[in-house]
Amino acid sequence: MKKIKPISGFPEWLPDQKLVEQYFIDRLREKFELFGFTPIETRSVEPLDQLLKQGETDKEIYVLRRLQAAEGEGNLNLGLHYDLTVPFTRYVAQNRGQLQFPMRRYQIQKAWRGERPQEGRYREFYQADIDIIAENDLPVYFDAEMVVLLHEVVTSLPIPRITVHINNRKVLEGFYRALGIEDVPAVLRAVDKLDKIGEQAVSQILTATVGLAPAVVEKCLDLARIRGFDASVADAIMDLGVQGDLLRAGVDELRYVMRILEPLPGGSVVADLHIARGFDYYTGTVYEGIMMGHEDLGAVCSGGRYDNLASGGSSLKLPGVGISIGLSRILGRLFSRGLLRASRSAPSSVLVALTSEETRPESNDVARALRVRKIPCEVFHTPAKYGKQVQYAEKKGIPFVWFTQGEQTGGHEVRDIRTGVQAPADVNTWTPPPDDLSIKVSFDDRGRSGE
Amino acid sequence: MKKIKPISGFPEWLPDQKLVEQYFIDRLREKFELFGFTPIETRSVEPLDQLLKQGETDKEIYVLRRLQAAEGEGNLNLGLHYDLTVPFTRYVAQNRGQLQFPMRRYQIQKAWRGERPQEGRYREFYQADIDIIAENDLPVYFDAEMVVLLHEVVTSLPIPRITVHINNRKVLEGFYRALGIEDVPAVLRAVDKLDKIGEQAVSQILTATVGLAPAVVEKCLDLARIRGFDASVADAIMDLGVQGDLLRAGVDELRYVMRILEPLPGGSVVADLHIARGFDYYTGTVYEGIMMGHEDLGAVCSGGRYDNLASGGSSLKLPGVGISIGLSRILGRLFSRGLLRASRSAPSSVLVALTSEETRPESNDVARALRVRKIPCEVFHTPAKYGKQVQYAEKKGIPFVWFTQGEQTGGHEVRDIRTGVQAPADVNTWTPPPDDLSIKVSFDDRGRSGE
Repeated sequence: MKKIKPISGFPEWLPDQKLVEQYFIDRLREKFELFGFTPIETRSVEPLDQLLKQGETDKEIYVLRRLQAAEGEGNLNLGLHYDLTVPFTRYVAQNRGQLQFPMRRYQIQKAWRGERPQEGRYREFYQADIDIIAENDLPVYFDAEMVVLLHEVVTSLPIPRITVHINNRKVLEGFYRALGIEDVPAVLRAVDKLDKIGEQAVSQILTATVGLAPAVVEKCLDLARIRGFDASVADAIMDLGVQGDLLRAGVDELRYVMRILEPLPGGSVVADLHIARGFDYYTGTVYEGIMMGHEDLGAVCSGGRYDNLASGGSSLKLPGVGISIGLSRILGRLFSRGLLRASRSAPSSVLVALTSEETRPESNDVARALRVRKIPCEVFHTPAKYGKQVQYAEKKGIPFVWFTQGEQTGGHEVRDIRTGVQAPADVNTWTPPPDDLSIKVSFDDRGRSGE
Repeated sequence: MKKIKPISGFPEWLPDQKLVEQYFIDRLREKFELFGFTPIETRSVEPLDQLLKQGETDKEIYVLRRLQAAEGEGNLNLGLHYDLTVPFTRYVAQNRGQLQFPMRRYQIQKAWRGERPQEGRYREFYQADIDIIAENDLPVYFDAEMVVLLHEVVTSLPIPRITVHINNRKVLEGFYRALGIEDVPAVLRAVDKLDKIGEQAVSQILTATVGLAPAVVEKCLDLARIRGFDASVADAIMDLGVQGDLLRAGVDELRYVMRILEPLPGGSVVADLHIARGFDYYTGTVYEGIMMGHEDLGAVCSGGRYDNLASGGSSLKLPGVGISIGLSRILGRLFSRGLLRASRSAPSSVLVALTSEETRPESNDVARALRVRKIPCEVFHTPAKYGKQVQYAEKKGIPFVWFTQGEQTGGHEVRDIRTGVQAPADVNTWTPPPDDLSIKVSFDDRGRSGE
């Protein structure tokens, strides 16, 4: 038999894993909607020029071509989107007259990047985004509220704790400009790599590549080293003795955001002055979420404030702030480490056994009656021996098997296949325990704490 | 302001429409899972050779290229899938050892076809598929059960009645072969167009292009004209006097399927001997669902039996049967005709008014208390005049506005903005009526029956 191989970077889950992913998506949707965020879905493609305008991703775009394009048909000029922020801001600018602002939307969709696949980096992956976009002005308050919402969301999921690292682009840019640095993006990119490559390597880049003087490099590293768990972090920045309007504005924002977030449990947020994020479109607060025990995975969520992204080419402003949750990155890691446990691996709560082809209508009647009461079930496809039917239920994790001609009474009986207990049952009243009605997912790191 | 235009064939919905689409998807999922179907999601791409093996779609595939592919990097050899059946059967063959059979799966995903866009035909669209795949043998019974499930599903949606037209490829192929016809696919394709181009045009193709004798053409049309609402349709076919083993086998299957479906309400199914379906992979029963009053749209769901699709290149058989619901096609039509009505256009049931920046914590407390009890809500973003805040709720269709400092009591009050009635309310006990808790969608053709 010819073996079919997976395609590198395009993950697919087995049925029990897909049920877990679905469970995660449902929890995310539920929280997002509780917070008044409305779902949006954008097409998978954007014009290439739109995709190329933003950030460091130009090498990673997949472009589309019709297989049988006619001679001279020309390029389609369409690429698959690499994030959900650029499509959403385009959508807002395009439909502006038909939307109410501030617009709170969530968007759970796939995105594509033609990168080299590695753990946590896929070519096709799910992101779950929440953003608020306002007309003309969006209070800095929302930079903090996004983190409150994110905290609420991630703590409702069966995953390790996520710490949100917070910084502000105005602080970085204001600081660098006050030091006389001209190529600010180059410094941002270098400092952003601090965790990955270390201080010495960053220092090397800043000196050799960007051409900064040693004293300036040292100041940049002083700033990058600052961490803080509350609003006092603002003082630590000012204590470095650098002055400037943009820096001051950024520090005020960061102080305000950190103050609002102070009620969150300890370890939920940290001001981290080396976070910069890759996309060029951020203009203020930036976020990065790191999953405890999985720091090597990099950010599992990220985002920030963008004041100039969604203008639709006009002078009208549509400032926004948002966070993207890297769903595939989180799940891929937890799946590969076996850290998620599902209560079962199939939607069915009950398998209705099939005794014979003649009694198929009776089995179907049982299934129908259970479904009327919202109990997911299926009828075994063929009148095999009961042992085989029970085995099928076991393998799929279906907890109950229903017999129309039970061994004890000759009538309807239901067996809990985990305990083997079988008892008479009435199809119009029998109900599985609430925990067996639908799938439950839990985080399970027993015996893995040493990893 | 530069106007941003939509991209032809890549539909996007406004927020209220997306809520409706989400509502439809949730209803579909609920039904599919009640019937024991497990969700699956496949990657968006397949190897080109896999996509090219099946059916008439070779001209319609979008292939991927990395924008900055290196010189000589070579073709990626990947295309976006044009349906969900080919990816699913590949998935089953690939993961066979880790799946339980029969495998019942549902899959709600986008597919892409590079066709000329027209009403009901998109380049990017949602399909909702259900399929059963067994090892070695799948009883014909399931050809009927898929229709029972489809009937249950579509009658639970707020859409016009769908009639499922049923045929059997064995009947067609057996009949044609018994008449000595060699180019069976050409005849299938011609007869399948009967509704669109009429008998004369089909007759013309069969005579001039396929080269059939007039008497043979007449027999083909005799068969294509047959319609039947029950198992007696089998006799009508045999009455044409054509004989053959394959024909006989197909007629027996069709009779059996129609007999099982007899309990369904009148008009739900019809045997229709001119239905063939475009894909080459069908081997037995084929389906096509037509939406009442929207016959011009063509099939809104379709599918059939495929005994040889999912072998993974081996001699092992993985026969399957499935139906695909054209979700985007249905919604696109109903949206454009204004035939769906949503109870509101936002997830929020309550807008918590913001009186001043100083009382933001109080407003936030109200929102938090409501969310604990699963009541979706949002806090107005800025302390604007109440009139403006109520207007925002009206525009978004949020039914209730909560005031922390109400006009009547100075305390908490809630206003139903549809009636204007405002009354004191306790944030720990007040609950919206069940119909206002989440969005409801209904079919609404008042005043449009003449269309």
